[in-house]
Amino acid sequence: MIKDTAPSHDGFYMPAEYEPHEATIMVFPERPGSWPHGAKPAQKVFARIIREIAASEKVCVAVNERTRQAAKEMLPEAVIADQELLSGAVNENGRIVLINIPTDDAWARDIAPTFVRSRDGSRVRGINWRFNAWGGEYDGLYAHWEKDDAFAPEFMRKTGYEGYDAGDFVLEGGSIHSNGAGTVMTTEACLLSPGRNPHLSKTEIEDRLKAYLGAERVIWLPRGIYNDETNEHVDNVCAFTAPDEVVLAWTDDKSDPQYELSAACLKVLEEAGIRVHKLPIPKVPVTVSEADLEGYVFEEGEDVRETGERLAASYVNFYFTNDAVLLPQFGGENEMSDARAVAIMKELCPGRRIVPIPARDIILGGGNIHCITQQIPAANVIN
Amino acid sequence: MIKDTAPSHDGFYMPAEYEPHEATIMVFPERPGSWPHGAKPAQKVFARIIREIAASEKVCVAVNERTRQAAKEMLPEAVIADQELLSGAVNENGRIVLINIPTDDAWARDIAPTFVRSRDGSRVRGINWRFNAWGGEYDGLYAHWEKDDAFAPEFMRKTGYEGYDAGDFVLEGGSIHSNGAGTVMTTEACLLSPGRNPHLSKTEIEDRLKAYLGAERVIWLPRGIYNDETNEHVDNVCAFTAPDEVVLAWTDDKSDPQYELSAACLKVLEEAGIRVHKLPIPKVPVTVSEADLEGYVFEEGEDVRETGERLAASYVNFYFTNDAVLLPQFGGENEMSDARAVAIMKELCPGRRIVPIPARDIILGGGNIHCITQQIPAANVIN
Repeated sequence: MIKDTAPSHDGFYMPAEYEPHEATIMVFPERPGSWPHGAKPAQKVFARIIREIAASEKVCVAVNERTRQAAKEMLPEAVIADQELLSGAVNENGRIVLINIPTDDAWARDIAPTFVRSRDGSRVRGINWRFNAWGGEYDGLYAHWEKDDAFAPEFMRKTGYEGYDAGDFVLEGGSIHSNGAGTVMTTEACLLSPGRNPHLSKTEIEDRLKAYLGAERVIWLPRGIYNDETNEHVDNVCAFTAPDEVVLAWTDDKSDPQYELSAACLKVLEEAGIRVHKLPIPKVPVTVSEADLEGYVFEEGEDVRETGERLAASYVNFYFTNDAVLLPQFGGENEMSDARAVAIMKELCPGRRIVPIPARDIILGGGNIHCITQQIPAANVIN
Repeated sequence: MIKDTAPSHDGFYMPAEYEPHEATIMVFPERPGSWPHGAKPAQKVFARIIREIAASEKVCVAVNERTRQAAKEMLPEAVIADQELLSGAVNENGRIVLINIPTDDAWARDIAPTFVRSRDGSRVRGINWRFNAWGGEYDGLYAHWEKDDAFAPEFMRKTGYEGYDAGDFVLEGGSIHSNGAGTVMTTEACLLSPGRNPHLSKTEIEDRLKAYLGAERVIWLPRGIYNDETNEHVDNVCAFTAPDEVVLAWTDDKSDPQYELSAACLKVLEEAGIRVHKLPIPKVPVTVSEADLEGYVFEEGEDVRETGERLAASYVNFYFTNDAVLLPQFGGENEMSDARAVAIMKELCPGRRIVPIPARDIILGGGNIHCITQQIPAANVIN
């Protein structure tokens, strides 16, 4: 692990998610406090997503002794190999690789390395941030996160990727977006939360982002999605679709608590000269039902759910694969909202398949498609 | 206004609330987005509280052109006088003074000066913090707070109190408690919120508290009361009852979202060597009803309420007067919880009257008895 320099000093930067991927990292889910009913409904959606991604890039799925069997049953085409993803290896579409690394939960976006690429496109390296389950002792979502925190270095060790160690700096991948052209987006709500890096001022945090992600500018959106238990990650509220264009979760209903949050973000984006496409949230709030609640098993120190609790449902939590956009859909009374989101994304991403994924079984875990995926940019690409 | 030194440099410190008061400051309520049904139910409770305080100390009630008439009708014994509270004046029990100062709402705790006293007890001065409606552009509760922000200097000007100006440092009185003996208590959730002083690190914020409040130690409770829209002010979750003793809002119900918050505070207090008395929260959550909701009138940019929303009801938001504890009561299904709180406070404050105050009409506004009062410590007291 490289500790004495940061990526930008070595000419590395974080590409945009819509640039070519070498592969995608995921984790097969099981945690009883996140995934109700023995995680079976979640595992089915994860398997569906893995296959959709594998249509255009390699997928590396972390499993443990218990989930390995379920993953093999649901994905019989998967191979088991711990060193399949050697840095710089030629991309091999359609390959699903199971890799043995234990985790505390299944949020690859937040626990896997954030990958950066050299300016000449020849090399890709990972970054190991400190992970504290979205807030540690302050407001973290579970009491033990040692395995999650160890995931990034273990992944790089097993697959041969070089990596930077960011020391004691706490960050999750879902709290940042890069346009690959010098601009990084984040939220004040998350990065300035007392549960992350309270010993650093806002300016010091911004300097770290620039040094590690190779950016010249940080756009600080004030807020994220209402009731988002990640302290309002940017990846649920706003995403780049082009270097100076974003989609922003939106509602026109001023009596919805999301209104003020999105309006505050819009103001900042407009002042930053970014073109904003509004992507309306589901019209009917997505909530936890009694039947859902019975399916969870919470452990000591874990954040609990309540019946009627509003989930942080947003269409912005999509994922770009090499040929598609995997877009969350919430179904039921939100069929019209779902269809509108598909239409907006189709308009904005003319070159890609828009793949609607029924995502209620993922949002019950607290995140969505973007939260359970992490891209490894392709090396050897002429920019 | 003194700008070049801080109180501790001049030998001033913030006494404990249970030390003798010269007077209490309040504001007569009217804001339609805080106080449903024309603020009438709230005004009645405020009038009741003003009289209970006046039993043992002077009360200074800020009014404007509109509320002045209502205050005079409900408090016919009140006198109108803008300069009744000259610093060092002899205390005159039973005197209710109306003073003309416009405000945006009625939270005296957060907009009035925080008063400090010289170590020899001879002088009392105020501190003018910057006020931004609990979060400003980030997550403030209303869009205009100019009058509230101007309240503290205007109060000191009209009443002749000397004052310190804390510059651009944002702080509300409800976010701090002092034991008058070198220790100040606050919450990370509030003071480290992105809506307060994000340009300062935790250490820099702690240094300001010590310099302005004359403290040697700051106890950082991580959290406050669940769903507290002040970003979890300390005065709703924990209060000193003696220099090394506190009451802490508590629940034994691990499925209640308050459990983790209170447990985290307990851990910090025990590590700090503080004796903790648990003061259980209402057994049945206090929520906003449809009838309540119809009574509010929200303006553009103001935080809205929803039916069923859980209010941050806690018995810790009491107020010490010179002879009493004014204790919130929530009634209805919480009669037993109410009675238990009275019994606990009676045990802890043997020398004072415990005065139960039906407080549902105050909590609907977003705070409670402590939030609508601010003490001016008595001068000329030999410590």
